[in-house]
Amino acid sequence: MGPHPAVADVRRAIRGSLADLESGALVLVACSGGADSLALAACLGFAAPRLGLRAGLLTVDHGLQPGSAERAHRLVRLAPGLGLTPAAQLTVTVGRDGGLEAAARQARYQALDQAADDLGATAVLLGHTLNDQAETVLMRLARGSGSRSLAGMPDRFGRYRRPLLGLSRTRTEQACAALGLEPWQDPHNADQAFTRARVRADALPALEQALGPGIVAALARTARLCRDDADALDDWADAAYAEARGLGAGLEVAVLARLPGAVRRRVIQRAAVAAGATASALAAVHIEEVERLVTEWRGQRAVDLPGGVGAVRRYGTLIFASNLS
Amino acid sequence: MGPHPAVADVRRAIRGSLADLESGALVLVACSGGADSLALAACLGFAAPRLGLRAGLLTVDHGLQPGSAERAHRLVRLAPGLGLTPAAQLTVTVGRDGGLEAAARQARYQALDQAADDLGATAVLLGHTLNDQAETVLMRLARGSGSRSLAGMPDRFGRYRRPLLGLSRTRTEQACAALGLEPWQDPHNADQAFTRARVRADALPALEQALGPGIVAALARTARLCRDDADALDDWADAAYAEARGLGAGLEVAVLARLPGAVRRRVIQRAAVAAGATASALAAVHIEEVERLVTEWRGQRAVDLPGGVGAVRRYGTLIFASNLS
Repeated sequence: MGPHPAVADVRRAIRGSLADLESGALVLVACSGGADSLALAACLGFAAPRLGLRAGLLTVDHGLQPGSAERAHRLVRLAPGLGLTPAAQLTVTVGRDGGLEAAARQARYQALDQAADDLGATAVLLGHTLNDQAETVLMRLARGSGSRSLAGMPDRFGRYRRPLLGLSRTRTEQACAALGLEPWQDPHNADQAFTRARVRADALPALEQALGPGIVAALARTARLCRDDADALDDWADAAYAEARGLGAGLEVAVLARLPGAVRRRVIQRAAVAAGATASALAAVHIEEVERLVTEWRGQRAVDLPGGVGAVRRYGTLIFASNLS
Repeated sequence: MGPHPAVADVRRAIRGSLADLESGALVLVACSGGADSLALAACLGFAAPRLGLRAGLLTVDHGLQPGSAERAHRLVRLAPGLGLTPAAQLTVTVGRDGGLEAAARQARYQALDQAADDLGATAVLLGHTLNDQAETVLMRLARGSGSRSLAGMPDRFGRYRRPLLGLSRTRTEQACAALGLEPWQDPHNADQAFTRARVRADALPALEQALGPGIVAALARTARLCRDDADALDDWADAAYAEARGLGAGLEVAVLARLPGAVRRRVIQRAAVAAGATASALAAVHIEEVERLVTEWRGQRAVDLPGGVGAVRRYGTLIFASNLS
């Protein structure tokens, strides 16, 4: 008798994600104890030796909830039975910079990076599912910032990999049940103070009600397509940026004028950041005002950008510099 | 004393939309009697003579609701007082092909096109607002089909223009109130049998609750950015398609292999449709299977596409043809 179909799905997803690794490499799973990462951990422990890989587990104790240290400890003790050694519990201190969610994320990745370095791991697996991807796309929609933002979470970045982006959360719950594992229910997931919890509990169900049950998969597909679109446009913008810079300082207006708007604005963004503008504060309205120096030229003055950088047009060239005024 | 701010907003939007028209041109407004198109009609009647333009009104009676003929008649009688002559009531018969909403839309545009031709109109204005755009983007999300789909409604297509895409529905209601006009409440807008009504009544409010009140504007901004991205990628794909076709039949694999995936798949889509594949039935999975003839070549057989077209790789060329098997 083969494994439960949900378990087979998770194992298959892991094999697909790790196919390129060399024999003997160490793969770690970042596990919170929730259904997603618990199913991922258990199936990694099964799949890794069959792929000639070593597998271990990391769990982060954020110290934000009562009992978090004991929960992390239980996971570490569970790990060897799942075929995961080494297993380590990482304790982090979460500040409040940029909000609790952002601060917790930053502390978590810092600890995971350090542990992966210390253990010499080639890859760290994250348990995000199709549902997490759909929630991410919806949250990014609220920013209204286009393809790159809608691209959602990549299936790989640096040493991190997300094998489960194609599987639903329900599937990982089924896998846990089939394996006799009891996942932890994070109370934060139901805490309406968190944007993601509100999206999960209210917004996505309302969208499903209005648009049909395919919406979660459709959002994840949207993410993939938008990622490919954004990648292609970034390629184009890189090439156009090199061409527009030519040999001198600034960007040649004649080159910018020939580009479609979506590419022109990406080139302007690159030049502004290279000149010292603050990337995170640089909004579409700023870029569009600089763009009008190309597309609606009528002798405008310098455009001020965040970070004390200005953009001005002089003799057919856009110049980005500090203290232009 | 100037006009009410909401009225000023609508008039300004109309002036911006019509700035390129030549003096004496006839502009028609398609008016249902709802707040959006009623505000648009009244403000067009005011703005047109000041722009040197003539203005008229069209209203379509779909014959789907009791009283629709009288309502259309009342609008036609109201029009001259708003500065709109000619004014005409267009009666259409709505079939059921592709669903009631799609059939009504098709019948409506056919009638508007005919009337615009008969009257020699240069432009026909539609009353879609920021809220309609946000609803459209959400409905398109359910398709999961990427940038072009998320681009929402264009502000212009053919002779049609949508001056109010930057204004909220509330703004048009305020304009009607300030002008003493009583808009019609379309019961279809509250009929939960219609996808758009469900999105408006339930899905968008739930998203606002979860993500904040900026979501409507963010969705509209997403539409604009995705439109620009899709336009740029279409430009690239057109050029790449011409290059890949070269002089012979089919697409050169070497050219396709150099392209980013997002552009390569658009080129394949163009070639498939040119060979007779059914555009509406051609899904991402079909295109991706053809793509694997380029990116994962291991001697695969012909790929069948909707419309009886097949794609096959022969000596470094992708060939699209009927009856390949």
